[in-house]
Amino acid sequence: MISEKTIEMYFRTLQDEICYGLDNADGKSEFQEDLWERPEGGGGRTRTIAHGNVIEKGGVNFSAVHGPCPEFLKKEAGLAENQSANFYAAGVSLVIHPINPMVPIIHMNVRYLKAGPMEWFGGGIDLTPHYIVEEDAKFFHQKLKETCDEHNTSYYPEFKKWADDYFYIPHRNETRGIGGIFFDRLSATDNITIHDRFHFVQSIGNSFLSIYLPLIEKNRHKKHTEANRQWQLLRRGRYVEFNLVYDRGTKFGLLTNGRTESILMSLPPTANWEYANQPAKHSPEEKTLSLLKKGIEWTE
Amino acid sequence: MISEKTIEMYFRTLQDEICYGLDNADGKSEFQEDLWERPEGGGGRTRTIAHGNVIEKGGVNFSAVHGPCPEFLKKEAGLAENQSANFYAAGVSLVIHPINPMVPIIHMNVRYLKAGPMEWFGGGIDLTPHYIVEEDAKFFHQKLKETCDEHNTSYYPEFKKWADDYFYIPHRNETRGIGGIFFDRLSATDNITIHDRFHFVQSIGNSFLSIYLPLIEKNRHKKHTEANRQWQLLRRGRYVEFNLVYDRGTKFGLLTNGRTESILMSLPPTANWEYANQPAKHSPEEKTLSLLKKGIEWTE
Repeated sequence: MISEKTIEMYFRTLQDEICYGLDNADGKSEFQEDLWERPEGGGGRTRTIAHGNVIEKGGVNFSAVHGPCPEFLKKEAGLAENQSANFYAAGVSLVIHPINPMVPIIHMNVRYLKAGPMEWFGGGIDLTPHYIVEEDAKFFHQKLKETCDEHNTSYYPEFKKWADDYFYIPHRNETRGIGGIFFDRLSATDNITIHDRFHFVQSIGNSFLSIYLPLIEKNRHKKHTEANRQWQLLRRGRYVEFNLVYDRGTKFGLLTNGRTESILMSLPPTANWEYANQPAKHSPEEKTLSLLKKGIEWTE
Repeated sequence: MISEKTIEMYFRTLQDEICYGLDNADGKSEFQEDLWERPEGGGGRTRTIAHGNVIEKGGVNFSAVHGPCPEFLKKEAGLAENQSANFYAAGVSLVIHPINPMVPIIHMNVRYLKAGPMEWFGGGIDLTPHYIVEEDAKFFHQKLKETCDEHNTSYYPEFKKWADDYFYIPHRNETRGIGGIFFDRLSATDNITIHDRFHFVQSIGNSFLSIYLPLIEKNRHKKHTEANRQWQLLRRGRYVEFNLVYDRGTKFGLLTNGRTESILMSLPPTANWEYANQPAKHSPEEKTLSLLKKGIEWTE
C-alpha cells in the first residue's frame, strides 16, 4: 500500500507545476482556483484559465475523495456485497483548448484508486490536433514511447492501442484525435510492485510540460484564416460529442452526483455543429479526417 | 391496426406543411432535402435549414423504417425472445435554433411504432426560451392544453408532468426549458381506440405552426445585446448536454448505428461553455434560471 499522504503530495505538486508552466507559457491569463469539499469526505482544487494569449479555456484539476465504498466499486475490486470497505481516489485531470487552431487540444489524467485491500493506477494522455501535422504527431508519440520505455517496453504498444480504442467516436467512425496512451487498473503483479506503477505514473505526469510546451511554442504564432477557425469549432463539436456520450470519467461523474463544473471544465469555450459538413477534396481538413483512424503507428 | 400507408402519408404531409410554414416565416433560407435509405429497410427525408433571417440552424426530419424486430423492442412489446416479428417505425422530428436570443428554441417529435401485434404512438413538444417571458410561456402551454383537452382532459396534466420529468438535466438541477408535453406508448385501451390515439397525435402535429409562428413573429425583431447573445450560447450548451447525455432518441440512435447526421441535426450551430457562470442578481438571466424548475403551472 502506498500512503495517501504520499499520493496526495505528488498529485498536488504535479498540479502546481503544470499550472505554473502553462501560466508562464500563456503569459497573459492565470489559473483561478476554486477549493471545494465533498460532503461525504475529501474535496479538490479546481483550477481554470480562460481568455489567455494561448489558452482560450482550460482546466487543471486535483481531487482526493474518500468514504464508504460504493457498490459498483466493490464489484470492480472483487469485494463481496456485504463486505464493508472504504475507498480513496485521488488524481489530476486536465484539458486545454487553445485559441489558435494550429495548436492542438491536449488532455491528461493520472489517478490512484484504493478500494478495501485493492489499489491501482490509471490515466492517459491524448492529443487532438484540429489539423494533424505529421511531425508534431510523431514528436508527441515518440515522447510518450520514450517515457514508457524507461519503465517497460511493453507499455507503449499496449497503452497506445488502448488509447486508440478508448478515444474513439463510433457514431462518427473517427478517433477523437491522434490518440496517445491510456491505461487503467495497473495494480501490483508478481514482477511489478505498486511502487513501480506509481513511478511510471509519476513519469507520465512529469512529462506533460515537456510534451505540450514545445507544441505550443512551435504553433502558437502560426497564421490562420477564418476557415481554419470554423474547422476548429467543428472539431471541438466532436470533442463535446466524445466527452458527453462516451467518456467514462464524465459519465461516471455526472451520474454519481459529482461536482458538475469541475467535470465539465473539459468542454470547449465554443463549439459548432453544421449539418453534413464535408471538407473539400485534397484539403488539409480532408487530410486530417483521413488520419483520425485507429492503428496508425507514429513511432519508429 | 392502422395501415402503414395512412401513417406515412400523414407524417410526410406534416413534414411538408411545417417546412413550408417555416420557410415562409424565415423569408430567406429554405430547407434542403437529403433522401436516405436504410440498408435493412425503409429510409427518410432529412430536411435542414441554416443561416436564415430567423432560423440559425434547424431540421425537420421524416423517417419510416422497418425490418426484423430487434431484441430490445421485442421485450418492450412483450414478445418472446424466440418469436419472430417485424417492426415498423415512422415519425417526424424537428428542432429549430433561432438567431435572435429572444426567440425560443422549439422541439417536436411525433412517432408511431409497431412491433409484432403491438402498436403505439409517442411524441412531445417542448419549448426552450433563452429568456423566459411569462406571457409567451402561458401562451405556449395554453395552446397545448387546448389541443389536449379536445381529446381528453386528463392528457394535458399527465403529459405536462411527463415533459417536466423528461426534459430535465439532473447534473444541472435544471429543466431544459419550460417543458410542454411528452407521451409514449399510447396504445389502444378499453375506451380509447388506436385511431383516437392517431387523431390526438395528428392534432399535436397540426398545432405546431399555430404555436411557434406567433412566438417567432412576436419576438424576431426584438433588440438584443452581445450579452444576450452570450447567454443564448450558454443556454445552447445546456441543450447539447441534455441531448447528448440524456435524450433517449439521440442515445438510442447513436448506439444502434442510426444516421448520425439526421440524429444530430438537433444540436445548435454554436454553443458555449464557461466555468461556473453565475448571472447577476436580479438580472433577466437569473430570473430565467429560477423558472427552469419542474412543476410550474403555466395554465389556469
